[in-house]
Amino acid sequence: MTATESALAAVDTGLDQSLDRLFELIRIPSISTDPAHDADCRKAADWVVKQLRGLGFKADARETIGKPMVVGHGGAKPDGTVPHVLFYGHYDVQPADPLDLWTSPPFEPQLVDTPTGKQIVARGADDDKGQFMTFVEACRAWLAANGSLPIAITVLIEGEEESGSESIGPFMAAHKDELIADVALVCDTGMWDAETPAITTMLRGMMKDEVFITGPDRDLHSGMYGGPARNPIRVLARILADLHDDAGRIQIPGFYDGVPELPEAVKAQWDALDFDAASFLGDVGLSVPAGEADRSVLEQIWSRPTCDVNGIIGGYTGEGSKTIVPSKASAKVSFRLVGQQDEAVIREAFRDFVRARVPADCTVEFKVLGGGPPLEADLSRPEVAKVAGALEAEFGKAPVFMGCGGSIPIVGGFKDTLGLDSILVGFGLDDDAIHSPNEKYNLSSFHRGTRSWVRVIGALAGES
Amino acid sequence: MTATESALAAVDTGLDQSLDRLFELIRIPSISTDPAHDADCRKAADWVVKQLRGLGFKADARETIGKPMVVGHGGAKPDGTVPHVLFYGHYDVQPADPLDLWTSPPFEPQLVDTPTGKQIVARGADDDKGQFMTFVEACRAWLAANGSLPIAITVLIEGEEESGSESIGPFMAAHKDELIADVALVCDTGMWDAETPAITTMLRGMMKDEVFITGPDRDLHSGMYGGPARNPIRVLARILADLHDDAGRIQIPGFYDGVPELPEAVKAQWDALDFDAASFLGDVGLSVPAGEADRSVLEQIWSRPTCDVNGIIGGYTGEGSKTIVPSKASAKVSFRLVGQQDEAVIREAFRDFVRARVPADCTVEFKVLGGGPPLEADLSRPEVAKVAGALEAEFGKAPVFMGCGGSIPIVGGFKDTLGLDSILVGFGLDDDAIHSPNEKYNLSSFHRGTRSWVRVIGALAGES
Repeated sequence: MTATESALAAVDTGLDQSLDRLFELIRIPSISTDPAHDADCRKAADWVVKQLRGLGFKADARETIGKPMVVGHGGAKPDGTVPHVLFYGHYDVQPADPLDLWTSPPFEPQLVDTPTGKQIVARGADDDKGQFMTFVEACRAWLAANGSLPIAITVLIEGEEESGSESIGPFMAAHKDELIADVALVCDTGMWDAETPAITTMLRGMMKDEVFITGPDRDLHSGMYGGPARNPIRVLARILADLHDDAGRIQIPGFYDGVPELPEAVKAQWDALDFDAASFLGDVGLSVPAGEADRSVLEQIWSRPTCDVNGIIGGYTGEGSKTIVPSKASAKVSFRLVGQQDEAVIREAFRDFVRARVPADCTVEFKVLGGGPPLEADLSRPEVAKVAGALEAEFGKAPVFMGCGGSIPIVGGFKDTLGLDSILVGFGLDDDAIHSPNEKYNLSSFHRGTRSWVRVIGALAGES
Repeated sequence: MTATESALAAVDTGLDQSLDRLFELIRIPSISTDPAHDADCRKAADWVVKQLRGLGFKADARETIGKPMVVGHGGAKPDGTVPHVLFYGHYDVQPADPLDLWTSPPFEPQLVDTPTGKQIVARGADDDKGQFMTFVEACRAWLAANGSLPIAITVLIEGEEESGSESIGPFMAAHKDELIADVALVCDTGMWDAETPAITTMLRGMMKDEVFITGPDRDLHSGMYGGPARNPIRVLARILADLHDDAGRIQIPGFYDGVPELPEAVKAQWDALDFDAASFLGDVGLSVPAGEADRSVLEQIWSRPTCDVNGIIGGYTGEGSKTIVPSKASAKVSFRLVGQQDEAVIREAFRDFVRARVPADCTVEFKVLGGGPPLEADLSRPEVAKVAGALEAEFGKAPVFMGCGGSIPIVGGFKDTLGLDSILVGFGLDDDAIHSPNEKYNLSSFHRGTRSWVRVIGALAGES
């Protein structure tokens, strides 16, 4: 039996306990965007540290300007004779609201039977606890089977990925020497489908901003003032409506500068994938693609920039009616970026677009909510072929090299600050409902993901 | 001394006790929208009944489907030989919140000195306790001076004007025979300014609706779905933005049907009023009139129909960001109506306007929030000239015949159910802050208002 095969057997026999450990972590409501859960975030960080130390890693939860940063070093000595990977994940999760739409409590994980197999249902089951625990459990199985890990491993698990990752940039800059590695492994993406693994090669960037419009200096009686008094909801609605034309094209001047045309070869590849646009939208109760009318749905998600209003509020929103001209209205807006689009340039262009549409007697304020650059992976790295081989061995199918509509800002940070390329491999699925109620992670994703990382460790170490 | 002059003298000598009685009533926190104050509403109703009985009226507090209805009959026998008026007011008040903005407790009335005279500060000081008590105290003064009232008077004081007036419609329908009169007198409006009385001749109507748009069947991750997934906030913003053109004109087909052009004579009268549009808007931090660009600000408030979004909500509205394509967005919209605009027709036209802009794969639902017809007083009624003469005698200035931007639904109810025209005379002022913290009523409004009703009683009775 090879070391890899022994470790795979250990994964299988230890799966129940692996699941128990994952459930323990899930139960900690580590919602980073809400200060009420600061202690929970700390608790989750400490829990991860304890797990890593249990695997013989030198690990701790470092103080940052924000949430604690888990850093661990383990495996073979990083003396240049063995591969050295830096594994990234995040222990923080999205808020769970709206709570009334969950079929079980978001922080009480359930193992649910379905016609397509068992599912772990909880906030964080996929994003990102289930995902990063596949790697931790792979290390555990390898150690249990073989006594020592054959590659050098640095583990970096942050606590603010869902709330803007304020701390990790400065942290990486301050600890460059400690975070040396050959390549980063990021487990925060998905498979092509439940049977087909993937390596994600393109990530959209992000620019998030909040807009606050004030009209009258207080809510007004709409009989007394309705007509002449400027309504900030009307001002805001006009701004938001103007952002797109009827063909789905964003109207901010200069917005498409730096947006590359998709190479024909890539477009042909994507068109050849068995992507069912109708059922992709149908799965969520939609049928009419809302993006740029002259692009396929896959392009709309993977390689075209977008704009979405994530939230809006203004005036009276309680029961019944209140006939006011409200004083204030605000909206949270986020843009997905591609190619050479520049977050700072887009932010200023957006703010200028807004200001140009605010009447002289109203005020507008802005608040930065976050951002990060778009990215494209370097597929020529030797580790990529090894990871691809490991995935093919586990799933019996070659991985799809796919784009990703989402943004994973850390990948840019790894490149810019640590000089590291990243390989993005994950085991999530489109219907995992991440960021939504009833988030789930297939048990098979957790199991086969753990097995896949065991194979990756073996492949990087030079095992066949 | 005429009967009127004797009664006026009685008003003046009895002012302090009149104020004491008003303060007693104000101290009862008769907030109708809050069930916790049901007993207070009953107490206020009983208090009014007691006052009316003290004036020799046959009065009681009738049970309704909601709050008790005060009905009183007094004065001369209504045998057709004397004028018969139905006086309306309401004993319920608005909630007082936000409490922290009051300079004195809202239900502990203060008589406050100011550079422009004394003011009564309390919730209900103007709306409507101070206002209707001017009439009650006028009757008292007349009786004290002259022994009996020269006209027939029915008093109808409801307890739900601030909470939708559910009961008064059915009550009036059930008691039509008891509520016979020549004309209704409604004391719930204001003066032109502190020195100039007014008769309100136009009231805008109302149509209130709520719109709910659903896009995806749940909140979606905007990386995974942003682009092709329809965003209901974007759909709603487009709908709301389309409601007005850049000249402030409402774009719903047929909206302006039944909107009369202002008679030149009325327009000339309004243009001649010393209305300071700049300081009207400046008082609330605005300067650029937002209504129809080709209309004066007074027309925009008094005689033009409007549309306002009173509230909007959708997606994530908490702290920080959540990168979702939300499932839902909704808005509360209200229209002020004029002339022959029909509430039901406008509601359907608005809903058709919305439906036409909802993509095929989204759903829209509506909810009625309320409404009422616009009203224009019949100024040719003989009582109008008598009331105008009485006001001119008191203030030394002819009353302004003014519009009112707001809606007073009872006026429509009097016409439709009881066949009664209404004469709207009140002594409130724009800065009384009704519905707001630190509501006040000038002592001079209370005093001169009471004197004005004495003169009205005399004028209706045929005194010069």
